[in-house]
This record gives sequence, structure tokens and C-alpha cells, in this order.
Amino acid sequence: MNTANPLANIRIVLSHTTHPGNIGAAARAMKTMGITSLFLVRPKFFPHADASAMAAGAPDVLEATHVCASLDEALGGTVLAAAVTARRRGLSPEMFTLRPAMPLILQAAQRGNVALVFGTEMSGLSNAEVEKCQLLITIPANPDYPSLNLAAAVQVVCYELRQAMQATDQAKPETPQPASFEEVERFYAALERTLIEIGFLDPARPKRLMQRLRRLFARSRLEKEEVDILRGILKAVKNS
Amino acid sequence: MNTANPLANIRIVLSHTTHPGNIGAAARAMKTMGITSLFLVRPKFFPHADASAMAAGAPDVLEATHVCASLDEALGGTVLAAAVTARRRGLSPEMFTLRPAMPLILQAAQRGNVALVFGTEMSGLSNAEVEKCQLLITIPANPDYPSLNLAAAVQVVCYELRQAMQATDQAKPETPQPASFEEVERFYAALERTLIEIGFLDPARPKRLMQRLRRLFARSRLEKEEVDILRGILKAVKNS
Repeated sequence: MNTANPLANIRIVLSHTTHPGNIGAAARAMKTMGITSLFLVRPKFFPHADASAMAAGAPDVLEATHVCASLDEALGGTVLAAAVTARRRGLSPEMFTLRPAMPLILQAAQRGNVALVFGTEMSGLSNAEVEKCQLLITIPANPDYPSLNLAAAVQVVCYELRQAMQATDQAKPETPQPASFEEVERFYAALERTLIEIGFLDPARPKRLMQRLRRLFARSRLEKEEVDILRGILKAVKNS
Repeated sequence: MNTANPLANIRIVLSHTTHPGNIGAAARAMKTMGITSLFLVRPKFFPHADASAMAAGAPDVLEATHVCASLDEALGGTVLAAAVTARRRGLSPEMFTLRPAMPLILQAAQRGNVALVFGTEMSGLSNAEVEKCQLLITIPANPDYPSLNLAAAVQVVCYELRQAMQATDQAKPETPQPASFEEVERFYAALERTLIEIGFLDPARPKRLMQRLRRLFARSRLEKEEVDILRGILKAVKNS
């Protein structure tokens, strides 16, 4: 068990999958989000060339796949199992939509192994399978057509898991050097002089032109180098 | 244009798709989240039996698909185009990860058409394609294998759009009319001509000046009236 990385304790369980291409596509979807533990319960075909083709750069996930004879076997050693399903059910475990379920899943995955269980393509999980799980998770979808492809559902679930993981310690992307207040103000002053020189701005009747242009450039949050370019353009206008 | 349901103003643009199965799977992914407008730029094969098979319950999305000869055509009539890409780029439009980009996308979709642009399977979007967009969106993923299947990426993006829609179903502050793709492109063309005329841009050695200026103005997401002002300034430069 890996306590530093809860994603390492999460397994994706696919029950009675019909199309081996979906198994491969699910493996790829998992790996793109850093989840690599795949359990299959009585797949119709596996291994299979379609699975390998759809796995693309995730052959390692397929190679390490556990093929199980029953859902009980696939849930062995877990501390939490969540059934992912499109359908609400009459008598079901506690039901969550996907995003609100994430804290529960990750909290459990810090303490032990967690299974996310997906049913067969045509009919989803059986009631007997759902009853083995402690949670029911639904992916919010178009009520007129909520039928996500199996691998697409795995992709969305794994994406949410990774997002929830990262939500705590988020690094900001590197940004270029922003221009200083003084640099931007000097640019506005030069811009105003140029607009007067070329006859576009009448100093006697300025209207709100400079305010409008300030607003435009303010939204872009000018970088140092961009101010240099814009000043260069104004100089070229003057000399032309 | 549909102001009541911003999702109806969002189009998914797939550029140079190689595998028709991915087109069908993308159509299905879209429909499960209530997005139905699909544009294809020079697909390798379409229509195709694989597309229809993978579309499952979304044949209506495929039937209404717009096949375009260029990205410009696919972006026609949009007020915002966002490139979805796994790669960071040296000089790119303003970059967001997926979830934080949602408010911007939905706000724009309340005023006009918005495009989410996906590149070809093997290599993604070209730099020239990215430069036509005002935003760059990345899907947070495993840095060792960030390679989502095309339809899986569409699924995640459409899922986030639907989630964001449901989270912010309240009134938004009034925003000015954004400029259309065509208006902004005409401005860039006029700007380039002027920079050449005044001797600031050497067409024999353009370096990356226009890319830099596109990036600057893309960040500000120009309004219609602002484009008019900027065009007016260029005219005044010409006549001065």
C-alpha cells in the first residue's frame, strides 16, 4: 500500500466486459491519469488484439491486469468499493454524483485499497454486483442520453480522481515577466502622443478614447517584452 | 443563437482526424453531455461505417456534422475559440487548465458561438492552428503519459462544461459584444500591412512579431467596438 500517493491504491474493476477494445481504451484512460491497477471480472475476450491496439501507450497496464473469476475476488483486500452506474436504483447503497464522492474515495485510498466498479457495456452492473459495493456513484449526464462509453466513463472518473488529488497542492504555471506600472504608464503616454500626431485623437475633444484603450490593454495584462514591442511600433509610426 | 442554454452555442471542432471511429466516439461523448454541434476540418474518412458504429445512440450528431475545408471555415461566426492541447508551447495564447477555463467559455457562450478545437490524433494541433485560437486549454494528466484518446478528451471537456453549467446556473454580469473571429482576423491582416508600411515589420524576416501581437490581443479577448477603434488607428497611421 502506498500512503504517499492514494492513486496507487485505487483499482479499476471492469465486470463482464464484452468488447476487448474497451478494456484497452480503459487501460489507456487510466494511465493518462496516473492510475494503473486494472481488474477484470470474467471478460468475454482477454487478452485480445483489440485490447492491445486500443491501449496505445499503456501496454504495461494490460500486462499487469488481474483477471478474476468473480467480483468478490476482484474486491479482495479493498476497504471501499464504489459502483459507477448511470442508473438510479430502488434500493441501493448511498448514492453520490461523481465530484462530491471524491473526498470519500481519496480518504479511503489513503488508508487502504479502493475499487471503482464498472458493469458490462449493454446493461451495466447487476443489482447483485451493486450490493457488494458501499457507494453508488453516478456521472451527471444528459438525461435524454446518459449512455457514456465504458472507457469514456473510466476516463471521466480517473480524471476527477486526479483533479481531486491535485486540488490540494496546486502549482501555478510559470508566467512571463509582467510589465511594471511605470512601464505601462509610459506606454500609454507615448500612445496618446502618437494618436494626437496622426490626427486620430483630438486633444480638444478626447472623448473616452484613452480610457477605452487602457481598458483593452489592461485586460491583456501586458508583459515587459510586449510593452517594448508596442513602444517600438509607436517609434516606427513617428518616423514613417 | 441560444441564450438560454449556452451549451447549444458550443461547437466541437476536430481537425484532420485520422480514425473515423474517433469521430463517432466523440459524437457520442458530446451527446451524453448535451452538446451536439460537431465541425470536422478535413477528416481523413467521413462519413464512414466506423464513425457510425462508435456513435452508438448519437447518429443525429453525426448527421448534422459540418465538414469544413479549413479551420477558418470551422471558426466562422465564433466569438471565442479555445485550443485543447496536451502540450505547452513556447509562444501561445493565454493558457488555462480545463476547469478554471470553464467560466470564460460559458460566459462567451452566453453571447455567441464558442469553438473547442482538437487536433489530429498523432500530433495534436499545429502552431498555425493554435494561433487562430484565443485560449489554450490543457487537461491535467499524468506527465509520464498525458496522451488521452481524442474522443476521451472530448468526453472530459464536455463533462466539465456540463458540470460548470450546472454549478453556475445563475445570472452573469452584462458583458460587451465580443468581436467575431472574422473581425479579429481582418484586424490582424490590417495590422500586419501597416507594420510593413511603416517599416517595423520586414516581410523577409518577420521573426515572430505577428505571433507575439496575436498573443497579446488574444488575451484581451477584443470587443467589437475595440476592433473598430484599432482599425481606425491603423487607417489614421496610413493617412498621416
